[in-house]
Amino acid sequence: MPIDRTLLERRLDELYAIGAEPDGGAFRPLYGEAWATAVDRVERWLKDAGLKTRRDAVGNLWGRAEGTDKGKSIVTGSHIDTVRRGGRLDGALGIVAGLTAVEALLKEQGKPRRTLEVVAICEEEGSRFSTNFWGSSAITGGIDHVPDDIAAAMRERGLDPQKVASAARDDIDTFVELHIEQGAVLEASGKPLAVVSAIVGTAHLEIVVTGRADHAGTTPMGMRQDALAGAAAMIQAIESIARSLGAPAVATVGKIRAQPDQINVVPARVVFTIDLRHSELNGRRALEERIRSLCQTIASERSLALAVRVLQEKPPVPMHPDLRSVLASAAKELGVQASEVVSGAGHDAQVLAARCRVGMLFVPSIGGRSHCPEEATKAEDVALGTTVLMRALQKIAY
Amino acid sequence: MPIDRTLLERRLDELYAIGAEPDGGAFRPLYGEAWATAVDRVERWLKDAGLKTRRDAVGNLWGRAEGTDKGKSIVTGSHIDTVRRGGRLDGALGIVAGLTAVEALLKEQGKPRRTLEVVAICEEEGSRFSTNFWGSSAITGGIDHVPDDIAAAMRERGLDPQKVASAARDDIDTFVELHIEQGAVLEASGKPLAVVSAIVGTAHLEIVVTGRADHAGTTPMGMRQDALAGAAAMIQAIESIARSLGAPAVATVGKIRAQPDQINVVPARVVFTIDLRHSELNGRRALEERIRSLCQTIASERSLALAVRVLQEKPPVPMHPDLRSVLASAAKELGVQASEVVSGAGHDAQVLAARCRVGMLFVPSIGGRSHCPEEATKAEDVALGTTVLMRALQKIAY
Repeated sequence: MPIDRTLLERRLDELYAIGAEPDGGAFRPLYGEAWATAVDRVERWLKDAGLKTRRDAVGNLWGRAEGTDKGKSIVTGSHIDTVRRGGRLDGALGIVAGLTAVEALLKEQGKPRRTLEVVAICEEEGSRFSTNFWGSSAITGGIDHVPDDIAAAMRERGLDPQKVASAARDDIDTFVELHIEQGAVLEASGKPLAVVSAIVGTAHLEIVVTGRADHAGTTPMGMRQDALAGAAAMIQAIESIARSLGAPAVATVGKIRAQPDQINVVPARVVFTIDLRHSELNGRRALEERIRSLCQTIASERSLALAVRVLQEKPPVPMHPDLRSVLASAAKELGVQASEVVSGAGHDAQVLAARCRVGMLFVPSIGGRSHCPEEATKAEDVALGTTVLMRALQKIAY
Repeated sequence: MPIDRTLLERRLDELYAIGAEPDGGAFRPLYGEAWATAVDRVERWLKDAGLKTRRDAVGNLWGRAEGTDKGKSIVTGSHIDTVRRGGRLDGALGIVAGLTAVEALLKEQGKPRRTLEVVAICEEEGSRFSTNFWGSSAITGGIDHVPDDIAAAMRERGLDPQKVASAARDDIDTFVELHIEQGAVLEASGKPLAVVSAIVGTAHLEIVVTGRADHAGTTPMGMRQDALAGAAAMIQAIESIARSLGAPAVATVGKIRAQPDQINVVPARVVFTIDLRHSELNGRRALEERIRSLCQTIASERSLALAVRVLQEKPPVPMHPDLRSVLASAAKELGVQASEVVSGAGHDAQVLAARCRVGMLFVPSIGGRSHCPEEATKAEDVALGTTVLMRALQKIAY
């Protein structure tokens, strides 16, 4: 039972053309024009595939093939929004692969035993508002409050912000998502496919280092309390700790500001951020603890003040063992030995895990590139990932 | 022959009140209202002291006491402009001390043998325009072009930008300036006074480190080309090199920018600045050479690209040995063993050195503070500095 590779690629091309930007890439921010056009396009494909469609209160699009058994649904899909100048596959692949796989199953295997659904989740990227996982949060009943700007944008699309709670579902058994890796681990391993073992936990910290502003000419090196020299020592230490712990620990200092930010003044204050990730909660905590401790030591040695603020904290989410096993078996049956990887990026599956069993498949990203027009995956890997997804859905739902 | 300490302090207070800012400090930007008021006030004092005043084409104010001998002038003074929220003494001290010393000499000693002049230099701080040493550059004939914004401001004060060349002088023999140290070296040494041996040479470099933007979650530590981690290693190395060379070498990284400046993206590009100073040209060059070499090594080890651009370069300026000796003798005659220090900050003397013998005296800055409302020097040190300046002028001009 082969997947129609031409159809798969054509649908990906069609979606990528919606919201195309002049300099390359596509931008489909939540509730925008391009977003709405893309949702309409996917709805047509779902209907063509014989699925019964509906949109929930936040604009998630569902296509349903009723199963012969009563019971909770088996769902596949991904998010339809993109970052600015986003690539062709992030989110789009999971939707197109899911609907193409389900379409093929229905055609070849007929009505499923368990109800099968394909979902185009309205938002995951923080593509427009200061929120992300908006669509999956609505599905898990996790939205307590709709900010005014989002509410206004919802009304423009005919959605009633008052009804957000109605998007919550407790009748999903399984969510399985095909996604690009968005990193270069899989490509480097030479494997065309991976089963995700866990989505990393993330902590975002803000570090404020306070020293004293001094004249860059009149202040000898030994009389300084240079906040930037101290911050540089900390950034070095953060990198060393993450390196010495090794994968799956990663730590990144992405933002930095020095004050007063003058060429001839010793910096008085530096603010920088740390993004810490690990697939196990204890690992993430140990990483954070070691970083906090070493930064404190550096600050003390240099007579600098240190303040650490947690901006965000998300626990790691393990994929359900049943699904890891089903996905690995499906791959094996197709003659592929899938590797197991940790997802360093966040995905809707980590939110949906609160309400159902979740599983994910990754296909390689060429050069590890993502969130840019260069984002790409070999057509044969796209087809393989879709075929394995289809086989897994068959094993679960038929 | 004592200096009138009360008069000295009162004049400093009066100048400090001109351009007073609501939150403390004074601001007298070039050709502004406060600046003009301050120049008028100093002109009245110069006239009261029996000096013949004139303003040159850029607005430097001169007060002259003709000597019995023909020949070049002996000049003292400093700049009248201030930084925003500037302190009470930076520049102001050199003017007030100079005129008070000359006033006392004329009163006690009569007409000098050599012509004595007091100057209020119009600008040194870059207080308003993207220029500094504007006044002393005009005196040395160093202004080739008057930018439009400065020309407009000059016309508002009745100055003709076309005539700037007429401010050049070749009839100055000696310029001697009393200034606050603006650092904490003198205070730490316990000495109330120092003779400046040299003004440091400065190089301002801009360093651009280029790596690759990567997803902070999906890119293992070993697969990164993190421009900020590399820049942090360089900043550490720069500090270590300056520390190991020791005084008078200093190196400061004052500005830093990371791109794309996102919490969850490995930085692709970092731009930072280095301010390098040393009192000897060879020392400054050696410092720069070691820093460039180590930064290059760090960049290569990390597969980062490095670009270094020289933004500005000013050679060190030694003070004239005759004046160092006269100033030291004057102090000794008053019972004070002055120390010798290198000036880490720039001063008008370094520009005027191109046309005449220059010398400088420093008095301590309490806590090393300067360019802020907290800028202060003990009244007894102010009086001592002024008295030594007077004695030195007496030795040279009488």
